Amino acid sequence: MSDAEVLATNQKFYAAFAERDREAMQALWATSCPVVCIHPGWPPIRGRKEILASWGRIFEDQSAPRIRCEAPTVAVIGDSATVVCRERLGNAVLVATNVFVREDDRWCLAHHHASALARIPETPPLDPDLLPN
Amino acid sequence: MSDAEVLATNQKFYAAFAERDREAMQALWATSCPVVCIHPGWPPIRGRKEILASWGRIFEDQSAPRIRCEAPTVAVIGDSATVVCRERLGNAVLVATNVFVREDDRWCLAHHHASALARIPETPPLDPDLLPN
Repeated sequence: MSDAEVLATNQKFYAAFAERDREAMQALWATSCPVVCIHPGWPPIRGRKEILASWGRIFEDQSAPRIRCEAPTVAVIGDSATVVCRERLGNAVLVATNVFVREDDRWCLAHHHASALARIPETPPLDPDLLPN
Repeated sequence: MSDAEVLATNQKFYAAFAERDREAMQALWATSCPVVCIHPGWPPIRGRKEILASWGRIFEDQSAPRIRCEAPTVAVIGDSATVVCRERLGNAVLVATNVFVREDDRWCLAHHHASALARIPETPPLDPDLLPN
C-alpha cells in the first residue's frame, strides 16, 4: 500500500511541475527535515524557501516543454521512500531520484535530483532465434 | 551520532571508489532492499549484481582520475539517510545523492546518483565595501 501512496505523491509532483502549479508544489515539500533540490546541471539548492523560489523561476518560462514522468519504481524504507523515474521534456530524457518522507499521514518530498541521460537507451536488438523463419 | 555514522559510511564509499576496491564496494551495498545506481549520464542500473559489475568495469580504467568527496551533508530519517555531496574527478565537478539504509547495526548504500554540474559555482565576487581603502 505504501508503494502506491508514494507513487501517487510522485505523480502529484510531476502534475504540479507540468501545470506550473506553485501552491501544489509548495504543499508537496517536506517541513520536518532538511530538503534539497538538484535541478539538471545546477548545484544543490537547500531549504524550502530557496527551493520553492527556484520552481517559481522555472514556472515563469512558459516556452519550456511540459514534463512527463515515466517508468517510476519505488523502494520504501520505514518512513522514507526513494523513487527513480525517467523525465521526458520534449525530446530530452532525464533521470530523477525523488526521496519522500512520511509526515503525519502523508508522503512529502524531501529530495529531488534530476540529470540528463547521455543518450536514450536503445531498444535491445531483436534476438534472431526468436524471429520467424 | 547517526549523522556521523552515515558520513563515515559515505566516506568509505568514496575510499572504495578512489582505491578501486571491489571488496569494499561490495560490502557497502545494501542487501535488504532494492538498490539502484545512476552513474553520470547512464540510465539507472538496478540490482546488486549488475551494480557491482558496473563498478568493476569503472575500476578497470586505470587512467581515470581519482575521486574526492567534498562538502557532504546528511539528513537522517529513521533507518534511512540521504547524503548530498560534490564529487571532484580531476578538473570535473559532479554532484551526488547517496541514500543509505540501516541494516542490523550498520549503514549500507541503497542508492547512488551522480551527475555533472553544468559549471562550477563561482566564488562570490568581493564586496567592495569590505575591501581596505
